[in-house]
Amino acid sequence: MTTPQAIDWNSLASELTGIEIIDDPTKVAKLSLDYYHFSPVLESQLKDKRGNIVVRPTTVAEVLEIARVCVKYKAPLTVRGSGTGNYGQCIPLNGGLILDTTRMNQINWIKPGLASVQPGVKLAAFDKEAHKIGWELRMAPSTYRTATIGGFIGGGSGGIGSITYGVLRDRGNLHAVQVVTLEDQPRVIELRSDQVQKVNHAYGTNGIITELEIPLGPVYPWAEVIVVFDDFMTAARFGQALGDADGLIKKLISIHAWPIPSYFAAVSNYLPEAKHCALLMIAESSLEPFQDLVREYGGEVTYQKSAHEASKGVSLAEFTWNHTTLHARSVDPNLTYLQTSFVNLEQVEHLYHHFGDEVIMHLEFMRVAGKLIPVGLQIVRYSSEDRLNEIIRYHEDYGALIANPHTYILEDGGMKTVDMEQLRFKEIVDPYGLMNPGKMRAWEHR
Amino acid sequence: MTTPQAIDWNSLASELTGIEIIDDPTKVAKLSLDYYHFSPVLESQLKDKRGNIVVRPTTVAEVLEIARVCVKYKAPLTVRGSGTGNYGQCIPLNGGLILDTTRMNQINWIKPGLASVQPGVKLAAFDKEAHKIGWELRMAPSTYRTATIGGFIGGGSGGIGSITYGVLRDRGNLHAVQVVTLEDQPRVIELRSDQVQKVNHAYGTNGIITELEIPLGPVYPWAEVIVVFDDFMTAARFGQALGDADGLIKKLISIHAWPIPSYFAAVSNYLPEAKHCALLMIAESSLEPFQDLVREYGGEVTYQKSAHEASKGVSLAEFTWNHTTLHARSVDPNLTYLQTSFVNLEQVEHLYHHFGDEVIMHLEFMRVAGKLIPVGLQIVRYSSEDRLNEIIRYHEDYGALIANPHTYILEDGGMKTVDMEQLRFKEIVDPYGLMNPGKMRAWEHR
Repeated sequence: MTTPQAIDWNSLASELTGIEIIDDPTKVAKLSLDYYHFSPVLESQLKDKRGNIVVRPTTVAEVLEIARVCVKYKAPLTVRGSGTGNYGQCIPLNGGLILDTTRMNQINWIKPGLASVQPGVKLAAFDKEAHKIGWELRMAPSTYRTATIGGFIGGGSGGIGSITYGVLRDRGNLHAVQVVTLEDQPRVIELRSDQVQKVNHAYGTNGIITELEIPLGPVYPWAEVIVVFDDFMTAARFGQALGDADGLIKKLISIHAWPIPSYFAAVSNYLPEAKHCALLMIAESSLEPFQDLVREYGGEVTYQKSAHEASKGVSLAEFTWNHTTLHARSVDPNLTYLQTSFVNLEQVEHLYHHFGDEVIMHLEFMRVAGKLIPVGLQIVRYSSEDRLNEIIRYHEDYGALIANPHTYILEDGGMKTVDMEQLRFKEIVDPYGLMNPGKMRAWEHR
Repeated sequence: MTTPQAIDWNSLASELTGIEIIDDPTKVAKLSLDYYHFSPVLESQLKDKRGNIVVRPTTVAEVLEIARVCVKYKAPLTVRGSGTGNYGQCIPLNGGLILDTTRMNQINWIKPGLASVQPGVKLAAFDKEAHKIGWELRMAPSTYRTATIGGFIGGGSGGIGSITYGVLRDRGNLHAVQVVTLEDQPRVIELRSDQVQKVNHAYGTNGIITELEIPLGPVYPWAEVIVVFDDFMTAARFGQALGDADGLIKKLISIHAWPIPSYFAAVSNYLPEAKHCALLMIAESSLEPFQDLVREYGGEVTYQKSAHEASKGVSLAEFTWNHTTLHARSVDPNLTYLQTSFVNLEQVEHLYHHFGDEVIMHLEFMRVAGKLIPVGLQIVRYSSEDRLNEIIRYHEDYGALIANPHTYILEDGGMKTVDMEQLRFKEIVDPYGLMNPGKMRAWEHR
């Protein structure tokens, strides 16, 4: 890899005729960001990182051409979708060329249960088309409206819908990807079935994704509901019970301890002072029996919109998963967050009481290997990096697995271990280590 | 209750003008049966039980009239659908009037996720209509082609589809029922939401179901697949793994130890000697990643039909759940069965080895409170009632819950305990104890 300073960017750009290039520094700076500012740790590490130029291809042929030129100049290449990640997944640590996929936004085909798309298709835009034949994406992050499918696969893991289908990493949730290599002779490789794990959630370190085949779920009309509770653990147990109720169809169970609901300005009318809340997406056809569950747990429904009504305003989904952190930080920029896999609600209860107001509980429910578990995206009142690490250690010592969102290193986040399959694939497709350098530790330290 | 011998049946029948009545003894005898002959114990207890007359109403008004007449004569009344149960649920222990619901076969409406039907609508006939708008019953027994919806609710519990939606008893799997009472002034009562549990799986002991509101699931094109394995426990673990794979969509996972596959004559070409098999319904869109799971467990796919192909021939579903027993008994009438909830596959493994060829393992997978568990419908080589009870006791001592299929008593089967809610409801709606007498022990012994 050549340092960006040593590269003649004008010369490089001149070889990319017909491909949209952005070199205006303000625009390049904007396209060198994601939401890493959620983390004060990442903020200080990443705030000065900038690419040199941005390219916006529209076809695989253009991507192949970009790959050829990057290899020729040994230029760092970082792929991005809409830049809605939170861990600096697409931040160009070594500068270089940024490949923005948002113009590769063609839907190739949609059929019952399956679709083929270019990586830059936005999630919400895709669903709008898929809904026409009764299908939708199985899962989506809270950045649903702006995030791209390629970005979600490259840097995401799960979200709204994971309560039914698990996470992207689960077999069957990604059927195929096509990637362009950064070899001396760049080529297109198709990975199908289990082979997709070579590039799934690899932060774009080992191949430029140019096409994806993704499975779909059937559309239910999803009603949106807020239920409030006097007691947080009752809200949490309600969430678990709803998740475990196989006869009630749901897409989202998001539980928030007070004062998190106070950060949700747009729906504040439905969130009484000092109450804990559940933000839910429930199939309209399950709403009636659902009321019995609410009654059983002593909850109060303060908000209920049909799917049709919900489609016209702001979706409750936009207050859940990582958007919770976004809203919290818009009120108090000193807030940050954690990502935690809990074993059970007993663990949640201990940690909820242990940290009091310093770590405010936010739970999402999702399926992991067939079992419903609570995951935490707790809001943390940040004091120092040391204290943050102390909090993380306490969780881990207590047996709660932290997927640290305060690192941009692939292996230090949710993965925890070196993924040898991804490393081996990088050795083949990116022999010069040009792709998103600095993110895959196994490569840097090999 | 008056004994049937003391009732003037001609007089009673004469009060039911305009309602179809069957009094031909051969026909009445035929409509006094179900599949209790699966159990040699029940066979000897029930084989002589006959109703006196059969009525076939078509409207709620006719049912109210029948109820009025039964109350007037204090005549026993037993409701039946297609008589496809296996525990004598609809056998008239005290004779009397048999109410056959099969002419109450109107579908009132079907909308996305929900439908309203009369009780005599057959499951397969319903799905044929519902498929037109992309929906289907959430679950069905293997008697799908002939069984009625009312009969399934009154006497069934779950089946094909329970791997996703749990059982009928789970909140949300039955929205509402309308029942006609046997009070001095018979009336129509509607039970909604949790209230439905008053009559759900009550063998028709406490009200005549005249209408049901049932939730639906979205239709996937269901491919049918047979996978064979050298080793039974590998087949069982494959079944569990497939069930727990949230990214793979399935409707049926049915695992059979050899020699059970040898009983499936119609598909014998696909069931090699001495191999254990998995009979599966998998969403067509999940077939590709599914192959990786098969490979991981060393299975061999011997049969694979698309949903369209499968719809034209015999469905694999017809070799699963209780149909397995049917096919086994058609080869060897000395075979009977058990119904077992296992805690896990370790328990299955012990019992598989412990009983050897006397209790041949047949597993179905289903969700119970959000968790996938293996249930057994093991085939048993019957020697005596004592030995059968010994086998049952061994299972129970080992911690495997037996839902005894060798009893017609409600509380002695899957329920295990007196359902006070059902008893209280019977006290209201059937004060003379006319409905399906002898089935609810709590009533008989109150």
